[in-house]
Amino acid sequence: MGSFGDFEFPQNNALLNIAGNSSNDNPLDPEEFRRQGHMVIDFIADYYKNIEKYPVLSQVEPGYLKKRLPTSAPFYPESIETILGDVQDHIVPGITHWQSPNYFAYFPSSGSIAGFLGEMLATGFNVVGFNWMSSPAATELESIVMDWLGQMLRLPKSFLFSGNGGGVLQGTTCEAILCTLVAARDRTLRIIGNDNIGKLVVYCSDQTHCAFKKAAQIAGINPNNFRVIPTTLSSSFSMCPKALRNTITADVEAGLVPIFLLATVGTTSTTAVDPLGPLCDVAKDYGMWVHVDAAYAGSICICPEFRHFIDGVEGADSFSFNAHKWFFTTLDCCCLWVKDPSALTQSLSTDPEYLKNKATESKQVVDYKDWQLALSRRFRSLKLWLVLRSYGVEKLRGFLRSHVKMAKVFQGFVEADNRFEVVVPRNFANVCFRISPSAVMSSSTKISNGVILGEITNSNDISSPRTKITKMGLVNEVNQKLMESINGSGGIYMTHSIVGGIYLLRFAVGATLTQESHVIEAWNVVKQHAHAILNSIPTTQSQ
Amino acid sequence: MGSFGDFEFPQNNALLNIAGNSSNDNPLDPEEFRRQGHMVIDFIADYYKNIEKYPVLSQVEPGYLKKRLPTSAPFYPESIETILGDVQDHIVPGITHWQSPNYFAYFPSSGSIAGFLGEMLATGFNVVGFNWMSSPAATELESIVMDWLGQMLRLPKSFLFSGNGGGVLQGTTCEAILCTLVAARDRTLRIIGNDNIGKLVVYCSDQTHCAFKKAAQIAGINPNNFRVIPTTLSSSFSMCPKALRNTITADVEAGLVPIFLLATVGTTSTTAVDPLGPLCDVAKDYGMWVHVDAAYAGSICICPEFRHFIDGVEGADSFSFNAHKWFFTTLDCCCLWVKDPSALTQSLSTDPEYLKNKATESKQVVDYKDWQLALSRRFRSLKLWLVLRSYGVEKLRGFLRSHVKMAKVFQGFVEADNRFEVVVPRNFANVCFRISPSAVMSSSTKISNGVILGEITNSNDISSPRTKITKMGLVNEVNQKLMESINGSGGIYMTHSIVGGIYLLRFAVGATLTQESHVIEAWNVVKQHAHAILNSIPTTQSQ
Repeated sequence: MGSFGDFEFPQNNALLNIAGNSSNDNPLDPEEFRRQGHMVIDFIADYYKNIEKYPVLSQVEPGYLKKRLPTSAPFYPESIETILGDVQDHIVPGITHWQSPNYFAYFPSSGSIAGFLGEMLATGFNVVGFNWMSSPAATELESIVMDWLGQMLRLPKSFLFSGNGGGVLQGTTCEAILCTLVAARDRTLRIIGNDNIGKLVVYCSDQTHCAFKKAAQIAGINPNNFRVIPTTLSSSFSMCPKALRNTITADVEAGLVPIFLLATVGTTSTTAVDPLGPLCDVAKDYGMWVHVDAAYAGSICICPEFRHFIDGVEGADSFSFNAHKWFFTTLDCCCLWVKDPSALTQSLSTDPEYLKNKATESKQVVDYKDWQLALSRRFRSLKLWLVLRSYGVEKLRGFLRSHVKMAKVFQGFVEADNRFEVVVPRNFANVCFRISPSAVMSSSTKISNGVILGEITNSNDISSPRTKITKMGLVNEVNQKLMESINGSGGIYMTHSIVGGIYLLRFAVGATLTQESHVIEAWNVVKQHAHAILNSIPTTQSQ
Repeated sequence: MGSFGDFEFPQNNALLNIAGNSSNDNPLDPEEFRRQGHMVIDFIADYYKNIEKYPVLSQVEPGYLKKRLPTSAPFYPESIETILGDVQDHIVPGITHWQSPNYFAYFPSSGSIAGFLGEMLATGFNVVGFNWMSSPAATELESIVMDWLGQMLRLPKSFLFSGNGGGVLQGTTCEAILCTLVAARDRTLRIIGNDNIGKLVVYCSDQTHCAFKKAAQIAGINPNNFRVIPTTLSSSFSMCPKALRNTITADVEAGLVPIFLLATVGTTSTTAVDPLGPLCDVAKDYGMWVHVDAAYAGSICICPEFRHFIDGVEGADSFSFNAHKWFFTTLDCCCLWVKDPSALTQSLSTDPEYLKNKATESKQVVDYKDWQLALSRRFRSLKLWLVLRSYGVEKLRGFLRSHVKMAKVFQGFVEADNRFEVVVPRNFANVCFRISPSAVMSSSTKISNGVILGEITNSNDISSPRTKITKMGLVNEVNQKLMESINGSGGIYMTHSIVGGIYLLRFAVGATLTQESHVIEAWNVVKQHAHAILNSIPTTQSQ
């Protein structure tokens, strides 16, 4: 920790200095801003330059930082030099380096220069764009950019402002889902009455992101009315329209009211794709709202050869993807389009006296506060605008295709090595793989406790991971060991999932700095750790 | 709009370039980051330097930007020079300059160098800190800084991690309110059953921020069960504990279940302060959750002489204030403390397989995803940490006191001019004033239509502003004209409210660059416009 009191505070005439004309003492003095700003730019540039030196997954222990920082805020100012020293010494070791080219975990958080600069400009202007009036550019640029992006995705015109719909930037998919769910809920409650909230039912698959369950909980949907359609390996974990229809029919017969379906293009565990067309057909029969969550995979649908993954979106009511995942726009930036903005605004509008203004009254403007959960909102469209303009459509397609190409390279390595297998077909730039049951078998001739190798049939097992491993057998245990061993090394970082009882490793390409050489080296790391683990399996296991 | 195609895209070998080693083509190339980053720092520094040259309130017309930008995204990259030129030419005119020293509207959005740098670092690292594991420093720094800040506010230890509570950074107060409301709702529903959600009642005053009504709507509270306690000028628009108790009693007698009270320290219209102690006493009798919204005024409670405004907070369940309002931390940064984190996490937790990890299982860490609405979260604590360290406690107090001092100066001007009056006592750095009824009277001898001057008794009038003005009489109309005239000039920017039937102008000091000279000049602007308007009142009005 840097020393305190680098700067001697003039206690006696403090107020005079600040309320007076001592501009250097102003916390937004332009020249001091310039000096410190340049320092931090260099700090971050150097961070990117050296990023491969750090373990990708932070190796600190819980509570590490408390031991290093004081127990209270400093009384006197500290210099930016001292603070940046502490960032380097105490913060960087506690960071998991999502921008590292050796980061292959979860989904990417793909930063870019343009995204960063857009965020800087938004932070510099620091406007609170709740309505048009509070900063017209913030609203208008957002509407324009959302139409640009909608066109790039070939969304139906009904989702664009140039149609009768429109787009809005939310923080995260969680917020987008909650907003659309509340709109759908209220659309029905306006007909059947608020007293019937307990009858409303919502639908998803067992692969749907956990954000949906949370949104339903927040929106007051009865937890008993949250329907999860099971998926299977044989259909690559995509939602079955027939199973959905059967579930809905049973609910309607029981006097319940289906209101909302969450369909996913690119699920978190395996990037599975739900069949939008057939699912929307089912939902339409019951007047349900369909939201399409393409948080990860939406980005690549700007490439014509990938666009078919969102075929059928024309039957949905809303569509969202996260530009902060795989579209070079820094966190947070979720792009949401809706066909019927009035459904959103009927649920989310506020109109206090202190926000009344002539522009709103003229009904010629969009007030985005009524399209989202919060009142205040940052000028997020700037970063998206800078990304679109700095790279252009063709180059953005090129970046995304290069990630898919690298994932294909990795997939090729897995397929060419008979100790490994690809668990589900790769749709985008994420490869789900594991050490194969046969490789584990050949390393271990006798297994105790009657544990069966490989898959188990109970895919709904939600007991703790520790218990699961015992049940799911040695193959899963070996693969978990592989993942922990790799991540513990700090060389690369991957995460896992369990689907259909199979513990799998996810190799998600998409960090901006990743090049093919990193993928080749990553595969070497995987092979190395797998070799060690397979050789350490006792030939007779008898614990 | 800049020309397209400044950069010729190598179409034929694009993939080779990108997946290969041409690092300059990488959108996160460190040296290109450095070059462009320095450019944008200079751009923003120059913006601050020249900020007084722009009209504070943007003077553009709805749709201005659509006329200036292309209808679709560029196919080829554009240079940062071109883009920054467009920001200057097309975005800046559409910005309302919240950072201008002549900005006195709404509440401040007080940026600072330290806040900006913290946001840069967070954006540069671009980690997604949903749980401890995903970047330990992001979680641990937040917990540490929230304890620091809680101590600075002298919050009871029960709100701090060093007690049994804890703090979390949310985006906005809207989110903080929704999270705590859902926690309170579920705490009760776990006892009385989900089927009884329609019986839950929530309470606030007619001065409470509109965010609360929206949160109740989102959380599925029956709109008929949203209780608004009226306030009056005589009690400076603070909530009356006795009126609250009466309302609750009636609800309980009707078989309803009171669950939540929103108390405010520093309301949006007039910075009124609800009496926390007595209100918490009432709420306690009914086992209700009390949230204290000190979005604006919380900041200044770090000064001992202002701390009394949150006396009684020890009886509340949660407390929040926005560091992005008046605490030099850029948008967004809402600080929320709760006494019982488990109430939050019981409502907001998710536990999908792909997020399971040993640190979480050890229960030694905080996973902030379970304390907020969304899963993903930015590294917001960095900017708060930088603000606290760059300025230190004493200097931060000095900044805030200087704003109060300047508001006092303005108040003095108003009080010394018999054409004006202060409408409600000033608590912090916001002066609520108007041209007085007597000044309007002396400028106008005869009024038609039987309209009564000055206050009307119906403070619950929610008809449109246009209608209201006719009803509320000439005094309000004159003051509205004054505000519109001032804002239309672009010299300074203020906003209004209507309380107890009185149209008032709000002069909120707090923009970081504001100095006493700006306040003096602002008063000259007000006088000048008032003079013109008072002289233009027809002595016989007969429309």
